[in-house]
Amino acid sequence: MVRIAVAGASGYAGGEILRLLLAHPEVEIGALTAGGSAGTPLGTHQPHLLPLADRVLEDSTPEILAGHDVVFLALPHGRSAELAAQLGDDTVVIDCGADHRLSDPAAWDRWYGGEHAGHWPYGLPELPGARDALRGAKRVAVPGCYPTAVSLALFPALAAGLAEPEVVVTAVSGTSGAGKSPKPYLLGAEVMGSLSAYGVGGVHRHTPEIAQNLSAAAGTPVSVSFTPMLAPLPRGILASCSAHTDASTAEVTEAYAKAYADEPFVHLLPEGTWPTTAATLGANTALVQVAVDADAKRLVVVAAIDNLTKGTAGGAIQCMNLALGLPETTGLPMTGVAP
Amino acid sequence: MVRIAVAGASGYAGGEILRLLLAHPEVEIGALTAGGSAGTPLGTHQPHLLPLADRVLEDSTPEILAGHDVVFLALPHGRSAELAAQLGDDTVVIDCGADHRLSDPAAWDRWYGGEHAGHWPYGLPELPGARDALRGAKRVAVPGCYPTAVSLALFPALAAGLAEPEVVVTAVSGTSGAGKSPKPYLLGAEVMGSLSAYGVGGVHRHTPEIAQNLSAAAGTPVSVSFTPMLAPLPRGILASCSAHTDASTAEVTEAYAKAYADEPFVHLLPEGTWPTTAATLGANTALVQVAVDADAKRLVVVAAIDNLTKGTAGGAIQCMNLALGLPETTGLPMTGVAP
Amino acid sequence: MVRIAVAGASGYAGGEILRLLLAHPEVEIGALTAGGSAGTPLGTHQPHLLPLADRVLEDSTPEILAGHDVVFLALPHGRSAELAAQLGDDTVVIDCGADHRLSDPAAWDRWYGGEHAGHWPYGLPELPGARDALRGAKRVAVPGCYPTAVSLALFPALAAGLAEPEVVVTAVSGTSGAGKSPKPYLLGAEVMGSLSAYGVGGVHRHTPEIAQNLSAAAGTPVSVSFTPMLAPLPRGILASCSAHTDASTAEVTEAYAKAYADEPFVHLLPEGTWPTTAATLGANTALVQVAVDADAKRLVVVAAIDNLTKGTAGGAIQCMNLALGLPETTGLPMTGVAP
Amino acid sequence: MVRIAVAGASGYAGGEILRLLLAHPEVEIGALTAGGSAGTPLGTHQPHLLPLADRVLEDSTPEILAGHDVVFLALPHGRSAELAAQLGDDTVVIDCGADHRLSDPAAWDRWYGGEHAGHWPYGLPELPGARDALRGAKRVAVPGCYPTAVSLALFPALAAGLAEPEVVVTAVSGTSGAGKSPKPYLLGAEVMGSLSAYGVGGVHRHTPEIAQNLSAAAGTPVSVSFTPMLAPLPRGILASCSAHTDASTAEVTEAYAKAYADEPFVHLLPEGTWPTTAATLGANTALVQVAVDADAKRLVVVAAIDNLTKGTAGGAIQCMNLALGLPETTGLPMTGVAP
Repeated sequence: MVRIAVAGASGYAGGEILRLLLAHPEVEIGALTAGGSAGTPLGTHQPHLLPLADRVLEDSTPEILAGHDVVFLALPHGRSAELAAQLGDDTVVIDCGADHRLSDPAAWDRWYGGEHAGHWPYGLPELPGARDALRGAKRVAVPGCYPTAVSLALFPALAAGLAEPEVVVTAVSGTSGAGKSPKPYLLGAEVMGSLSAYGVGGVHRHTPEIAQNLSAAAGTPVSVSFTPMLAPLPRGILASCSAHTDASTAEVTEAYAKAYADEPFVHLLPEGTWPTTAATLGANTALVQVAVDADAKRLVVVAAIDNLTKGTAGGAIQCMNLALGLPETTGLPMTGVAP
Repeated sequence: MVRIAVAGASGYAGGEILRLLLAHPEVEIGALTAGGSAGTPLGTHQPHLLPLADRVLEDSTPEILAGHDVVFLALPHGRSAELAAQLGDDTVVIDCGADHRLSDPAAWDRWYGGEHAGHWPYGLPELPGARDALRGAKRVAVPGCYPTAVSLALFPALAAGLAEPEVVVTAVSGTSGAGKSPKPYLLGAEVMGSLSAYGVGGVHRHTPEIAQNLSAAAGTPVSVSFTPMLAPLPRGILASCSAHTDASTAEVTEAYAKAYADEPFVHLLPEGTWPTTAATLGANTALVQVAVDADAKRLVVVAAIDNLTKGTAGGAIQCMNLALGLPETTGLPMTGVAP
Repeated sequence: MVRIAVAGASGYAGGEILRLLLAHPEVEIGALTAGGSAGTPLGTHQPHLLPLADRVLEDSTPEILAGHDVVFLALPHGRSAELAAQLGDDTVVIDCGADHRLSDPAAWDRWYGGEHAGHWPYGLPELPGARDALRGAKRVAVPGCYPTAVSLALFPALAAGLAEPEVVVTAVSGTSGAGKSPKPYLLGAEVMGSLSAYGVGGVHRHTPEIAQNLSAAAGTPVSVSFTPMLAPLPRGILASCSAHTDASTAEVTEAYAKAYADEPFVHLLPEGTWPTTAATLGANTALVQVAVDADAKRLVVVAAIDNLTKGTAGGAIQCMNLALGLPETTGLPMTGVAP
Repeated sequence: MVRIAVAGASGYAGGEILRLLLAHPEVEIGALTAGGSAGTPLGTHQPHLLPLADRVLEDSTPEILAGHDVVFLALPHGRSAELAAQLGDDTVVIDCGADHRLSDPAAWDRWYGGEHAGHWPYGLPELPGARDALRGAKRVAVPGCYPTAVSLALFPALAAGLAEPEVVVTAVSGTSGAGKSPKPYLLGAEVMGSLSAYGVGGVHRHTPEIAQNLSAAAGTPVSVSFTPMLAPLPRGILASCSAHTDASTAEVTEAYAKAYADEPFVHLLPEGTWPTTAATLGANTALVQVAVDADAKRLVVVAAIDNLTKGTAGGAIQCMNLALGLPETTGLPMTGVAP
């Protein structure tokens, strides 16, 4: 059995990692650590994880995390890099934070500030070339939730030269994406019955990560106009992604069918069917559909994921499977919980 | 007192018209008509309209609608034009359906099919020139809910030459926009906890209406890529609208401040504040904010409305006020119901 | 015009008071005060109150609140009594907090602790004798939201001797009832998709208030078993209230019809129709329906209100109208915002 | 491998059975049948069940259902009994409908009407004596969702003589409990933002089933006052159940701890923690907590389940495991999907 520790077990990403690990046949759950919640039982924070309810959270120190085969870091950026630097080279470290996603130190400095912690193999196996880099990796940078949805929506068109390298994205997210730290605008009474926009005008930190992924796929710099929104649901991202195209719907569909033919988790839907996030709830799946608007000469791709599963914890475990040499789909749900 | 009839009083648009009319100081509510629900009390269909609970719905015939100063039509397209043609020229007829919105018969034929019923004064007073055409009008075509939000979001930039005439719009709507006719995908259990896209690729019927409004404002044909989504809330539209620009945020802000300086219902929010639909719930207001993404060279405008109020019934009553020569804001709520 | 101040204007109760006052024809809104938010514009906290967006919040001091005809206190308990004691006797003070609701100092000490601030006229005009005490009153204790719903549901049966004085109540509330102070269990991601119970076993502080009201109506001590629940909606209380009975549904219906015949805000629904909270959204109405279960020999009464409107702010303004000698219904919405 | 057929695969119960069976290690999914949807692919109706998306629904005939080891019936009452009568005695038939739940033909006639199809082993293994009757059974009557929650909440107290046999229950349900057949009151726009009561006054058909279970546990007839409510969430039941008691919280807690000590799916929560339905989402678990209100002398028990999992499909598979001699927990999720 592979022995696992989770740092940040009281938050949403940590909770979802644990939910999935409890159903994973090859792992054993070791240390669970937290910041301010250290010393309290996990059940207080994650009442849905009944089998672990009595486990007491420990401090997120290198000493406590040592001695595990795999350590998941579900921590604020900055804190991840700091801890990771103190973990052994033979430990598989899977960072769900942003510290090791961007390859360009200047981009890091502009968007996050401070010293760049370096660039790790990027945990979106479906991207061209990514899977090979993840096999046997000792360090993995798990993508952000929006970059997961948007990259899966757009890279096949860009890689096939079927879309121009100026993309416009509006992505709507459930509110767990904003985390568990209580703020007035995240209160249920504020969120329910309301739609809101934030980080508009190219200022959301997932923008450079999307640009990095799409530029690599296109082989040319891709400009990204990214607008995120919050909607009243706990989980789910629905991304509407578009770019100028001269191709037809049939040509684009063929490119996506080819790109995802062998992917176990990404599904190009049958013609006429559009993604819903409910169909991905709690599953490590991404649903994709494409259309070309011949009047506007724009390709529109819609992708749905669960931001906590394929968008964070499920993607992380998919990478762990690759890093450990396990079958990539081990322990990962293929079916959503609906309705 | 102005005597009013409402055809289609059992549906969502009809219900919202009545809710607002009950608070309007200058009107008296006359005949309420319906299709299949004729003969039943209004309270069965609109339990929130307590003062009208015992009013019995009548048939939607010209005879029953005759003898009112104003007739609101909240009916499926096709049915509106048919009924309107049988109402007297001295009656103010306000059509919340699509029949009289498009000025181009070819566009009508392409998007709706059948004979074009003609073009009436378009009921979005904030558009350039629109208000004058509505004063004293006997016929008004109330805009669609998405065209209301998107036109208010984009026309000032296009009219000022601050955005290129190729716009990309993703607009998220509450599910009342899909009407009250029960379909499986609109069930609460399907809708709650899910985001979905529909009408993707330029096939939604509001597309030509948006193009018509924006092209008129720009003085040149505007290409529109429009993607609608459904989110789990009863009411509200949040539209993310973008176009290539060479202007700065400050220049655009100035243009919008000028465009909306004297508009009672459209509010350009203070810098740094982004619209939420909750703030417009039940109100005839539209909230707008702008930003220019200097990296992507795109203007992004976000607008929030209540699809049933400013997006349908409130907009309709605003037009009625203009048609009757009443102050434009009479009886229309300026404050949303939040949280 | 009556000049009004609102202390606690940044919270949910304060916001709802202002929303309703903006539509009240006889008032002028004066000082708006807050605690930690003093110095910031109201628009930051209440973006739906557009006409007051630029008003700056002041400190909640007696000096700033002085010089108004009416002062609404929407403050935590304890703080209300403290401030009220420093306001002039000729000012109408309407306290939305708990300080002056309980008549029994021992009950106050048991449930809230500390010194009893005394008992003011109780602001539920529909209760026997309550309306007379409110006319011309200079001090009013606005009921809690649950006591409003439960008292309206049960007092007619108890007053008519049609129910035994041991009542069992389960009441479900939207989450605005828990206030605007951010706590993890009130986050949108926690609240949406979940139902929860709290304060079970007779420990909720609204229990003695319910018992006080029902005991007065019954003329004998009434035992109250009260279980509150939270459901995923911003506003609304639906209360299921039951007691042993030997009466028939017809007898009980007659008693309720009589009790509420002249009440403008409380509606006994037609036979076969059951209350929904949506029909009361933003309205000062209460919807009630009764049934006797002949097998279990229990009367069940279901009542729906909006916890912020009839349950707090609307009820408060209804009392203000009585206190000022205005028509009781002045400025108060009779129709809900639905769907 | 055990070969399974599901009749009614396009509905909510059928979909949940399939979701769980896809994760069950000992089964193979055979025929999937439906009524009006026969001939269409499952993916049209259950987009979350990706691995079965292309499976075409067949007619619900005995011929098509024959040749399977286990047949699940997720059909309207009446239709189940009719089909079941035509299935072989060696097939395990698990009926999720009501036809075989009530033991008393007179109760059947009163609550459902028509001929009584007989009484099968009742599929709530946690009830006294129930588990033994289910081991090796060829026919199983799966309980209703409300009776599952309420019986688990109350039987230990009644069996231990700690509660009087007159119980009062208010149970709130997500709207999937009302099924997938589209009706206006189940539309998302109606459901979201609203709470409603229905079947009040002892007329809900789950009442006699609750009474049957509790009376058997108590050894004396138990009177049941049952009020169901709908709340805006897809899944989940939270039941508030009370009865007169002379016991203390400690005594009752001890009885529940004993009753559920060895139950894998029912969890008595730690002191001070109350159930939330979110913690059970998609899991076969029931969460229970108790309190005695010493003032009102009433025991209050709150139970949370997912109505589609432990309340229907999960309970059904738990029974299948018993019927087939498999470990009772095989393939059944212990963790909820939260937030």
